Amino acid sequence: MTNQSVEISPAAGRRSGRQARQESRSRGPQGLHRPYIVRNIPTYDILSEENLERIEATADRILEEVGIEFRDDPVAVEHWKKAGARVDGVRVRFAPGMLREILKSAPAEFTQHARNPANLVRIGGPNVVFAPAYGSPFVMDLDQGRRYGTIEDFRNFVKLAQSSPWLHHSGGTICEPVDVPVNKRHLDMVYSHIRYSDRPFMGSVTAESRAEDSIEMARLVFGRAFVDENCVILGNVNVNSPLVWDGTMTAVLRAYARANQAAVVVPFILGGAMGPVTNAGAIAQSLAETMAGCALTQLERPGAPVIFGNFLSSMSLRSGSPTFGTPEPAIGSMVIGQLARRLNLPLRCSGNFTTSKLPDAQSMNEATMSMLAAVHCGANFILHSAGFLDGLLSMSYEKFVMDTDFCGALHTYLDGVKVDDDQLALDAFREVGPGNHFFGCAHTMANYQSAFWDSQISDNDSFEKWEAAGCEDTAGRANYRWKKMLAEYEAPPLEEATDEALQDFVNGRKGAMADAWY
Amino acid sequence: MTNQSVEISPAAGRRSGRQARQESRSRGPQGLHRPYIVRNIPTYDILSEENLERIEATADRILEEVGIEFRDDPVAVEHWKKAGARVDGVRVRFAPGMLREILKSAPAEFTQHARNPANLVRIGGPNVVFAPAYGSPFVMDLDQGRRYGTIEDFRNFVKLAQSSPWLHHSGGTICEPVDVPVNKRHLDMVYSHIRYSDRPFMGSVTAESRAEDSIEMARLVFGRAFVDENCVILGNVNVNSPLVWDGTMTAVLRAYARANQAAVVVPFILGGAMGPVTNAGAIAQSLAETMAGCALTQLERPGAPVIFGNFLSSMSLRSGSPTFGTPEPAIGSMVIGQLARRLNLPLRCSGNFTTSKLPDAQSMNEATMSMLAAVHCGANFILHSAGFLDGLLSMSYEKFVMDTDFCGALHTYLDGVKVDDDQLALDAFREVGPGNHFFGCAHTMANYQSAFWDSQISDNDSFEKWEAAGCEDTAGRANYRWKKMLAEYEAPPLEEATDEALQDFVNGRKGAMADAWY
Repeated sequence: MTNQSVEISPAAGRRSGRQARQESRSRGPQGLHRPYIVRNIPTYDILSEENLERIEATADRILEEVGIEFRDDPVAVEHWKKAGARVDGVRVRFAPGMLREILKSAPAEFTQHARNPANLVRIGGPNVVFAPAYGSPFVMDLDQGRRYGTIEDFRNFVKLAQSSPWLHHSGGTICEPVDVPVNKRHLDMVYSHIRYSDRPFMGSVTAESRAEDSIEMARLVFGRAFVDENCVILGNVNVNSPLVWDGTMTAVLRAYARANQAAVVVPFILGGAMGPVTNAGAIAQSLAETMAGCALTQLERPGAPVIFGNFLSSMSLRSGSPTFGTPEPAIGSMVIGQLARRLNLPLRCSGNFTTSKLPDAQSMNEATMSMLAAVHCGANFILHSAGFLDGLLSMSYEKFVMDTDFCGALHTYLDGVKVDDDQLALDAFREVGPGNHFFGCAHTMANYQSAFWDSQISDNDSFEKWEAAGCEDTAGRANYRWKKMLAEYEAPPLEEATDEALQDFVNGRKGAMADAWY
Repeated sequence: MTNQSVEISPAAGRRSGRQARQESRSRGPQGLHRPYIVRNIPTYDILSEENLERIEATADRILEEVGIEFRDDPVAVEHWKKAGARVDGVRVRFAPGMLREILKSAPAEFTQHARNPANLVRIGGPNVVFAPAYGSPFVMDLDQGRRYGTIEDFRNFVKLAQSSPWLHHSGGTICEPVDVPVNKRHLDMVYSHIRYSDRPFMGSVTAESRAEDSIEMARLVFGRAFVDENCVILGNVNVNSPLVWDGTMTAVLRAYARANQAAVVVPFILGGAMGPVTNAGAIAQSLAETMAGCALTQLERPGAPVIFGNFLSSMSLRSGSPTFGTPEPAIGSMVIGQLARRLNLPLRCSGNFTTSKLPDAQSMNEATMSMLAAVHCGANFILHSAGFLDGLLSMSYEKFVMDTDFCGALHTYLDGVKVDDDQLALDAFREVGPGNHFFGCAHTMANYQSAFWDSQISDNDSFEKWEAAGCEDTAGRANYRWKKMLAEYEAPPLEEATDEALQDFVNGRKGAMADAWY
């Protein structure tokens, strides 16, 4: 069955009164939306102190013996020379402990501000922030199948994220707007985040000038002085694993740090290709590469916020394709979480990953496995929390709302279990006694409305009711829901002067450049 | 889209050479099959000592102040009188600490034997055993949709479980064989487990005589003396929550204990109905009910093996239906795990639950959430590891193979991360260096074959390859796979004399009873 061939069930047009009530509970972020989650369950620490130290020692030996290349960025190399690293051309080697020492100036926790102050997020410590997926060239939905993303798709996903009470962040390159020239896309993307969302967002990282443009647009919203003192934008920079930092990336990373904005430092290690096939080795490599990137931000501007990222992936031995939501990266994330906490740095992990080409059973098995690992390992900023299908290549409209619904369940999960007299309910047992039901007892009446997570996507009806309503599957229900969310979307207010200043900036920058398509 | 309307993709008939190779790796249990898992990651302990003690204290007060009713089983009541409980008719109240004291004679870990000695399982401690789902009246597949289960379906699922390298146990009432009279089903089910599987299994619990029949059949396989000394059969008994033990269940529980076989003691608490809507209270109730049932086994026969079970569920506030794979029961399982370990008892949890009526995205999101909670909380015996759809009412052939595939992934997950010189791969970094790939390096060549979990159900191909192969979804691939597994199934050898003795017993018992259909 192809995604193109699936028709929207006729049942999608007929909603019962029950469904209407259910939907009214979650319309828009107000009411249900929390700006971020403060976790009330501990992290899942799976490795012993002794084994963590062995991994750290291996990272130190990689950094000392093999080193890292910093290509095409003489400023970065100069930073390392001054800091006392051993520099040989573009190869930089580090004495054990040197990077840890430099990293002491980085904050363990910081605030990223939003243009709506109610939506600021805390990144680090016990805080958890969900952001949409990032970087797909394609988009998909059940009606049209897969095609290249456009700026309209981009805006749609910003609007869907803004409309979900279960995301906290507008993200960055939610999908590539392939209909806009490569050298101008960042202007339209950053403008869309500001215009159609009032949550925190991310800027461009594809060139230093584009990072500077992104930060400049943030200054138009928040004011120059405020931006110099506060984090208002994130930039997600990738290591060229193994053990290479490209000049574009380090220049971008330094641009964000220089402006006191947070770089997110992320090696992408596909075991067996960009790193060893064994998990412990890939983790040590990830630690080495991330420490070097994070430390560079501190050389550019001591005290600048920075996020310790990671992205471990496994490989299909049959096809050589990357695989996601598999056990090895899940286990790897848990270890990386422990290592990040030992460095006192905020942690980024990846969320709802899958290689499935449809919003089907595989997609949610892999996504759930991957997302729970991010939540358990203590990640503070979970990028890719919603939308991915097709091994990171496609943003799916249906998967987006399935994933955000799961993000909602994780709010309840991260609240853990409250243990107090009311929750322990001894009086209810005294009232009800053996063999009777709790439906109408005083404790139930007082607590039932907030008692259980209430999914907007799952079907919990009886088989007969479900059958009578048209046998819709999850993807079909999600198809109905994203269309409804888009139809009901209302843009958050934006001061006219700010909007004009942003549009002037975008038009001015666009006017100064010829279109570039690659 | 109905499950009846989904056609098997034509692609199911054409398998590539790659797929054939992949399948040959996992054909039959030999090679990949481990009799059970010894976990190499810690349990996920989410609650503080102080809060665990508050829950235990609440359970003690429920047991002391409200008590539990033991209905229609004077022997059980007599046991409690002798043990010093306060008995008032069928209501039994327990002094704080009394049940804990009685439970000290129960083993923390025990062996359940299988007729193939290579397949014995250890239950308790760091060991994890996956068993199929249990108790559905309906079965489903993509070709025929939902219908009542038959003895042929039952045999099919026994064969599928036996053919999966990722299950360890044949389970019990995998589905209800509705075409066999109610009072004779247990004979056909136990016979099928013994005949078509050589793994451990469970016996009947619907009447004391049926439990006795089940144990008697086990004696024909293992010998009377051996059975008196060793566990060879489990019986899953349910509390009639809240706070009632029915006489049928306690008689069955005592029958298993008397024969030195393991009862699995399971309260089914749907919060707001059979227990309070608040998690802490439901957990305290579960602890009280399970402790009482487990302790009764020790009064019947001190030292008999027993398994501490639990089954917490949430409720849809819209429909009043139970919901599964939701955050509250997942969190509840983690706490129950901590409580079971404080009692030194083996723990049973439930696996791949869902209310979805199709093997779709919802089904695997909920199943994955539920199964990971069972794995994280330290469950030793995970019933319902494969097959459930439709809120426990249906066994799905497709979901069964999806779930067993996920059980395979969990083997790798529970292995955790190995940290030694080979896994840390420092030599590989020295060999490869910055900017090069690890594809052909010595470390990769030495390790790649065992490096990554290799799913048999997930599609990791490129979009283009997947599209060219017919755009099959996970359910379609699972449909192909269960048919192939059934077609290739080979019965494990069974001694002719044993088989004859079993058939004689079954025929004798059947001949002595008129058919009963309810």
